[in-house]
Amino acid sequence: MLSLVSAPPFWLRDNCPCSGCRDPRNGQKLFQITELPAGLAVGSVQPATTPDGAPAHEVVWAPDGHRSVYPESWLGAHLPGTAADGGDGRGEDDKELWDAAGLAGRLPEADWADYVTDPAARATALDSVLRLGFVLLRGVPVRDRQVLDVARTFGYVRETNYGELFEVRVEADPNNLAFTGARITPHTDNPYRDPVPTLQLLHCLTNAAQGGDSGLVDGFHAASLLRAEDPGAYEVLTRVPVPFAFADARTELRAHRPLIGTDPAGRIREIRFNNRSIGTLHQPAGVLDAFYAAYRRFGELLLRPGLQLDFRLTPGDCLIFDNTRLLHARTAFAESGDRHLQGAYADIDGLASTLAVLRRKDTPA
Amino acid sequence: MLSLVSAPPFWLRDNCPCSGCRDPRNGQKLFQITELPAGLAVGSVQPATTPDGAPAHEVVWAPDGHRSVYPESWLGAHLPGTAADGGDGRGEDDKELWDAAGLAGRLPEADWADYVTDPAARATALDSVLRLGFVLLRGVPVRDRQVLDVARTFGYVRETNYGELFEVRVEADPNNLAFTGARITPHTDNPYRDPVPTLQLLHCLTNAAQGGDSGLVDGFHAASLLRAEDPGAYEVLTRVPVPFAFADARTELRAHRPLIGTDPAGRIREIRFNNRSIGTLHQPAGVLDAFYAAYRRFGELLLRPGLQLDFRLTPGDCLIFDNTRLLHARTAFAESGDRHLQGAYADIDGLASTLAVLRRKDTPA
Repeated sequence: MLSLVSAPPFWLRDNCPCSGCRDPRNGQKLFQITELPAGLAVGSVQPATTPDGAPAHEVVWAPDGHRSVYPESWLGAHLPGTAADGGDGRGEDDKELWDAAGLAGRLPEADWADYVTDPAARATALDSVLRLGFVLLRGVPVRDRQVLDVARTFGYVRETNYGELFEVRVEADPNNLAFTGARITPHTDNPYRDPVPTLQLLHCLTNAAQGGDSGLVDGFHAASLLRAEDPGAYEVLTRVPVPFAFADARTELRAHRPLIGTDPAGRIREIRFNNRSIGTLHQPAGVLDAFYAAYRRFGELLLRPGLQLDFRLTPGDCLIFDNTRLLHARTAFAESGDRHLQGAYADIDGLASTLAVLRRKDTPA
Repeated sequence: MLSLVSAPPFWLRDNCPCSGCRDPRNGQKLFQITELPAGLAVGSVQPATTPDGAPAHEVVWAPDGHRSVYPESWLGAHLPGTAADGGDGRGEDDKELWDAAGLAGRLPEADWADYVTDPAARATALDSVLRLGFVLLRGVPVRDRQVLDVARTFGYVRETNYGELFEVRVEADPNNLAFTGARITPHTDNPYRDPVPTLQLLHCLTNAAQGGDSGLVDGFHAASLLRAEDPGAYEVLTRVPVPFAFADARTELRAHRPLIGTDPAGRIREIRFNNRSIGTLHQPAGVLDAFYAAYRRFGELLLRPGLQLDFRLTPGDCLIFDNTRLLHARTAFAESGDRHLQGAYADIDGLASTLAVLRRKDTPA
C-alpha cells in the first residue's frame, strides 16, 4: 500500500484501467494528460477486487475523487522498481549477436511447407528474424512474384522506386551495381532512404552462375566490437551524419544519417553502411579526418575473417533479413551466367506484430 | 592548390570522379574505402582541364599513383570550409516553423487540375509539404480510392494493418477512436509503428456532420518553444523512451521512442505525440515524475491558443501532411452525421525525390 502512495501520481493515474479512462473496445486512452488536475495525489487506498474477482487496490484520487482499481498482479509487475524498460525488441540488448562460427550448425531455416501450415514453425522462423536478424526459408515455390506472397505471410510490401519487387540479375543498362555481376561487399540496402526499408527478402529463382555466393554480417555485433576496440572511432560513427545519395533518371534520394544509429540511452539500434552511396561530406577538416579513419576501421572490421556467414542460395530459397542490422554481400559472378533473384522490401514492425499475435494463439484460451 | 594539399586525403580520394572510382552508369562508387593504401597522401597537383574543358586540378596520389581530376567548380563548392552540411531536409533547420497567425492568408493549397497538369504547381505543392509540413489539394475528384491515386502522384502507398487505405467514419465496432465521433486532440498517427508512416493523406468525400473540423499544429515549432521555455522538460522528452502500443484481434504493435526525436547534433527531427497509445512506462520513480511533468507541459503547449491552424475539410479536399512533424486534430462530431474521409499513408523520402526530379526538369537542358 505504501508503495502505491509513493508511486508517481501522474504515472499511476495514466494507467487507470477503468472504462472511463480507457476505451474497452480498443484499449485506447480517452483522456488527455493535460486534463488531470495539477495537484493530483492518491487520496486513499483500500483493498478491492476486480470484476472477475482478482485481488486489487482501489485508489480514490485527490482532488477530483476519481476511483481507480488496480489489480495486485498489475501492480506487482509494473510499480517502479519491479521492471526495467524492456525495449521494443529493436535495440542491441534485445538481440542475440553472432559471428559465423557462433552460428555454425544452427543456421536459422525453415521448410516452406512447414512455415505455411504450422503456426509454431512460422513463429520460430519469424522469431529468428527478430533475434538473429534473418531466416532462410527453403523449398519456396520457384515462381515469378512469389517473393511478394512470402512478404504477405507476415506483413506488407514496401514499394520503392525499384518497384514492388526488383529483379536481381544482369541488366543491359543497370541503374545499380546490384544489377551487374560485380562483387558487392557487406552493405545496407537503400541507405539513401529515410525511412530505410527495415526488412529485405531475396528469393532465388536461378543460380547456375560461377560465383554469386551470399554472405551476411551481423552489423550490431561488428559495431559492438568497434566500441570495445576503438571507442573513439565508434563515437565518431554515431555522431557524424553521412550524406547517402542515389540518383537516376526518375529518382533523387538522400538521407543524412550516421553509420551507427543509437537510441537516446546510447544502445545500438541501426547500422547504415554502404560504400557505394556515400556522397560528399561537408564537415571541418578535423571531423573529416576522424570520420574517414573510423569509417575505414569499421570497414576493415566488417571484412574481418570469421564475421561473415557465407552460404549459397539455391532455387527455392528465400532469405528474409533485417536491413537495419545485418549487412549482406555477394561474390562476383560471370555476367554470362544464369543468376536470377527477386527481391522485395517490407517492414519489421509488421513482422513483430504477426509473431506477437501468433504467440497469443499459443496460449490456451 | 595549397588547400588541396591540406585537404583530408581520404575524403578527397573518396570523391575522385574518375570512371574507375565511380560507375558512370549510375554514379555509385566502385572501390571500398578499405582498399585505399594506409599512408594515402596527395603526391603532386597540377593544373588540368576536364573532358569538357572546364578548369580543374589533377592530383597524383602517393603511394599508389592514382590520378584524380577535380573541377575547380567542385573544389570551390566542397572543400572543407566552403560549405556546411546542409542536412537532408528533414531536421528543424530545413523547415519554416509556423503558428496559426503566421500562416494567416497563405494556406499552402493547390487546385487539383493545376497540380496534375502543371509541373511548377506540383513542385510548389510538394515543396510546401517539405517546408511547412503540409499542403491542401482542392477539387480532387470525390471518388472511392482516389486518395491512393493522389499518393501515387508523388510516391508509394505504405500499407499497414489498417489496409492500403482506411475509412475515417463512424464504425459499429471501432478498433480505433478515429473511427468514432470523438474529439481527437493533436497527435501523431501510428506512433506504435517503427518506421512510423512519414506522410499521411486525408481525402474528404463527405462532411455534412455537425463538428468534425480539422486542426494542425507544427510539432517542431511547439518543441522549439518548449526548449526555449523549459529546457529541462525538453531534454527529458528527447531522452525517455515512451512505450507506444496498439493491439486488436489481428495486430500487436509497439515502439519505444522518445516524444521528441533529435539527430546526433541535437536538432529536432521527429515528433511522436499521442496520448491514446502510451503504454506503461517502466522507469525509476524520479524519471517518471520528471517525464510526466514534461509530458503535461508539452501537452499544454500543443493546446496553447494560436498554435493550431483550424479549417474544415470539404468534399474534394485532400490534405497531405508530414506525420513526423505536424500533429493533427479534429473536433467531435455527431455520430449520426455524415462524415467520411479516406486516408492513406506514404513516405516523405519519395515525395522529396519527386520534387528533386521536377526541379531538375525546370533547369533548361
